[in-house]
Amino acid sequence: MKRGLIDAEVIRDRLQSAFDPSLVESTGARLASLLARHLDRIQSEQVGVMRWQSPAEQVERAAELLGEGGAPDLDLTALVERFETLVEKALKQGNQLHHPGYIGHQVPPPIPMAAWFDAVGAMTNQVMAIYEMGPWAVAMEQAMVERLGRAIGWRSGAFSGLITHGGNLANLTALLTARNVALPDSWAQGLTGQDESPALLVQSDAHYGVTRAAGILGLGEAAVIPVPVDSRRRMDVSALLERLGRCRREGRPVIAVVACACATPVGAFDPLPAIAEACRAFDVWLHVDAAHGGSALLSRHHRHLVSGLELADSIVWDAHKMLYVPGLCAFVFYRHAGHAKRTFDQEASYLFDPTAPELEDYNVGLRTIECTKRAAAFGLWGVWSLFGEGLFADLVDLSFSMGMVFFERLERADDFEPLHRPQCNIVVFRYRPRQLNGASDQVLGEFQLRLRRRLVEQGEYYIVSTTLEGMGALRVTIINPLTTDRHLDGLLEALRREGQTMLSEG
Amino acid sequence: MKRGLIDAEVIRDRLQSAFDPSLVESTGARLASLLARHLDRIQSEQVGVMRWQSPAEQVERAAELLGEGGAPDLDLTALVERFETLVEKALKQGNQLHHPGYIGHQVPPPIPMAAWFDAVGAMTNQVMAIYEMGPWAVAMEQAMVERLGRAIGWRSGAFSGLITHGGNLANLTALLTARNVALPDSWAQGLTGQDESPALLVQSDAHYGVTRAAGILGLGEAAVIPVPVDSRRRMDVSALLERLGRCRREGRPVIAVVACACATPVGAFDPLPAIAEACRAFDVWLHVDAAHGGSALLSRHHRHLVSGLELADSIVWDAHKMLYVPGLCAFVFYRHAGHAKRTFDQEASYLFDPTAPELEDYNVGLRTIECTKRAAAFGLWGVWSLFGEGLFADLVDLSFSMGMVFFERLERADDFEPLHRPQCNIVVFRYRPRQLNGASDQVLGEFQLRLRRRLVEQGEYYIVSTTLEGMGALRVTIINPLTTDRHLDGLLEALRREGQTMLSEG
Repeated sequence: MKRGLIDAEVIRDRLQSAFDPSLVESTGARLASLLARHLDRIQSEQVGVMRWQSPAEQVERAAELLGEGGAPDLDLTALVERFETLVEKALKQGNQLHHPGYIGHQVPPPIPMAAWFDAVGAMTNQVMAIYEMGPWAVAMEQAMVERLGRAIGWRSGAFSGLITHGGNLANLTALLTARNVALPDSWAQGLTGQDESPALLVQSDAHYGVTRAAGILGLGEAAVIPVPVDSRRRMDVSALLERLGRCRREGRPVIAVVACACATPVGAFDPLPAIAEACRAFDVWLHVDAAHGGSALLSRHHRHLVSGLELADSIVWDAHKMLYVPGLCAFVFYRHAGHAKRTFDQEASYLFDPTAPELEDYNVGLRTIECTKRAAAFGLWGVWSLFGEGLFADLVDLSFSMGMVFFERLERADDFEPLHRPQCNIVVFRYRPRQLNGASDQVLGEFQLRLRRRLVEQGEYYIVSTTLEGMGALRVTIINPLTTDRHLDGLLEALRREGQTMLSEG
Repeated sequence: MKRGLIDAEVIRDRLQSAFDPSLVESTGARLASLLARHLDRIQSEQVGVMRWQSPAEQVERAAELLGEGGAPDLDLTALVERFETLVEKALKQGNQLHHPGYIGHQVPPPIPMAAWFDAVGAMTNQVMAIYEMGPWAVAMEQAMVERLGRAIGWRSGAFSGLITHGGNLANLTALLTARNVALPDSWAQGLTGQDESPALLVQSDAHYGVTRAAGILGLGEAAVIPVPVDSRRRMDVSALLERLGRCRREGRPVIAVVACACATPVGAFDPLPAIAEACRAFDVWLHVDAAHGGSALLSRHHRHLVSGLELADSIVWDAHKMLYVPGLCAFVFYRHAGHAKRTFDQEASYLFDPTAPELEDYNVGLRTIECTKRAAAFGLWGVWSLFGEGLFADLVDLSFSMGMVFFERLERADDFEPLHRPQCNIVVFRYRPRQLNGASDQVLGEFQLRLRRRLVEQGEYYIVSTTLEGMGALRVTIINPLTTDRHLDGLLEALRREGQTMLSEG
């Protein structure tokens, strides 16, 4: 590389505006009013929950704006104006999760303040891997791990935990740890030398990320042995015991039993105490995917759903679900603190400073897949420190109670069929008007999926669909605190209206 | 679950303030001035780059603030005040990457506006997995993939790409794809049935995340065959050919060759055209970790460093390094578009809507480890659309040229020794005062590490250390556009001052 190719001072002058504090102040103030006005319009339903557009059109628009970037002579005023245009476009083209008609995914309308706290971490880039890169980020993460771990029922110092980027990565991390504990040579030697096929005993309704983890970890999808569910879609413990016994007889090493609190399809909570007893009897690692339901630990009325969670060896708990922070903030917990060091049975000392061994416990890169890692605790720590723990109890209690409110409405209606008695805020159901009496399961199932798509593209309500026993169904997660009884009635009315139109159109 | 346990209206009233648009506006305006003032003080060096504190103390402070959260009777004014206290604490306790004395990790002081754009994505929670969850987030990601893929030199439609949460996860994703292509049964059947031990041929200076990926994927660390480097720490291609030949003779399947652009220790760029030719001759997947150096593609003067990158089968390129956006925004690219579908050889159709198969290409969860995924393109798309592509050329050109500026200073100084001629903005060197003449390698190496720690805890400059050939050394990444020649001189002076104090203290 030669010197003198460039004039550093000329470039620094050009770069000045991109790092200018007064631009940060002007655009930030503008952003605050844009977002406030936007939230106000969404919450009061002045706009729809979604403006459906084809992906190709959206990509084209995003590419166009990208291509128009950067007239080099833009002054502060022009930059603020362009910033406003870009933000308004993004707000308009996105989904409106704060709309009371959003009753869809297990993804909340976040507590808005969490995004302001996240912005502090982003603008100052408090990333981690090692303590010195993000000392306050590490401190917030550890403080949250400690607080939530105690909510599980564990004793300070005995357990450990970390935050990673999403439930899939969290499940992968915990199952990697379980693999390394069950097959101690697997990290160094790989699985090719392994004689017996390992097994992963998985609640049959578990999230696809668990089977995906088996594929990633070299166990193979074939390692997954589904454990059937009972009539309420909770793990059948006698079936689990039978499978554990069979693995023992066949000499198959069991990596882990994976239970759910709750499982995705209908939000069913597995009977954890009985499952934990089975695991203890067979000396097998118990992993609980409590991504959605872990937050019941903070509730005033629903803690019983996760009774026994403290018996798990590893737990996944997503704060970006029922703790209402923006994605992603997924916790992994280990009952035994030392297990966190087994995830990567790796000598990584060169990352870390041999002159400061006392920092090792705070160098999170030793325990997380990420090296450079976002300060993912910022939003949760900030909101908790601002509003207090009671906020989370309220959010869980309100949303879980609304599941039952909706279920009762479905029961009362002649033309709707609830498919289960909800344990939380997830409810699965079908629209079954008279005209479809006698229709085949396939016709009835496909009707639900087409009805859902029609409703969503129409923009007033946003719900999702699922497939139960091979048959399509409608599914809601009542996760917006602004969604009231009136909106649930409105949803049923909208489904009737769109459904009847579909039927009349043939 | 019983109804009637709670009064929904009472809870909604309590929750009102947490979702109140006027609180968002007041705190946002406050945040804008706090951050602007903070940046101004940092950039003008009114405070230090870091206030060193022990991790235990920091965790205690974070836990205290958490415990004080949420007097239930807080009004708007009190909430804004408490918000301000929390933000100020975070700004004070964190690191100051925008300080010109920050010359440390391969982590930039981000373009501040990127954080405002990220805040839009966070507050409205435009997460992905499937298109309909974050249509605009998908559009921005695809627009960026298209733009950067064309910068690599690829043709629209022929390649594909995605964003994931960090370089380690990006390397893992690409190597998982390579594993599934090389060992087609490995996804379904796992590796336990595999007869021959697979091999991963890895530049010996490659990031620890590559060996970690081998451990995660069930290949085992033993699968990693290091390929030696030449005197400039670039991959030795004749050694690569020898190892490829040996694997063929032994019947060992080669998962991939992993090259670096550039490697972490001294920022050396591998000779990609020759490596690609070797891979082609042996029909082996070429993966290039261009996390740091990929951005040279946008430079006016350094594009030649990554010549041949277009021949790779997969590439990792971190926007949160030399494109100056906050962590995390890591791109994975595949030369052949279809390879992105091999990462998870998984039937995941139940995630997706059979009534809308045309959306499949936009359902990113089919190709990323994350299910719920942050709108990670927001910051990059926003900054690019605001300032234009020239901004990135300037950032790369300025920082890379400063590497040479620093190198020349080290050469001129009697008491400093540069350990390589830099190819980019990473420079490794040692302080070698007269008093250490004749010291053993071990004494000299340990002196560098202790000198670095002393400097960092003192708070005026932040640099890092590394170990080359088993011997400690000082290392800088000149990544702050505000770092000028004056600061580089000041750094050498500070090292001399602290070093001499250490020597005088014995």
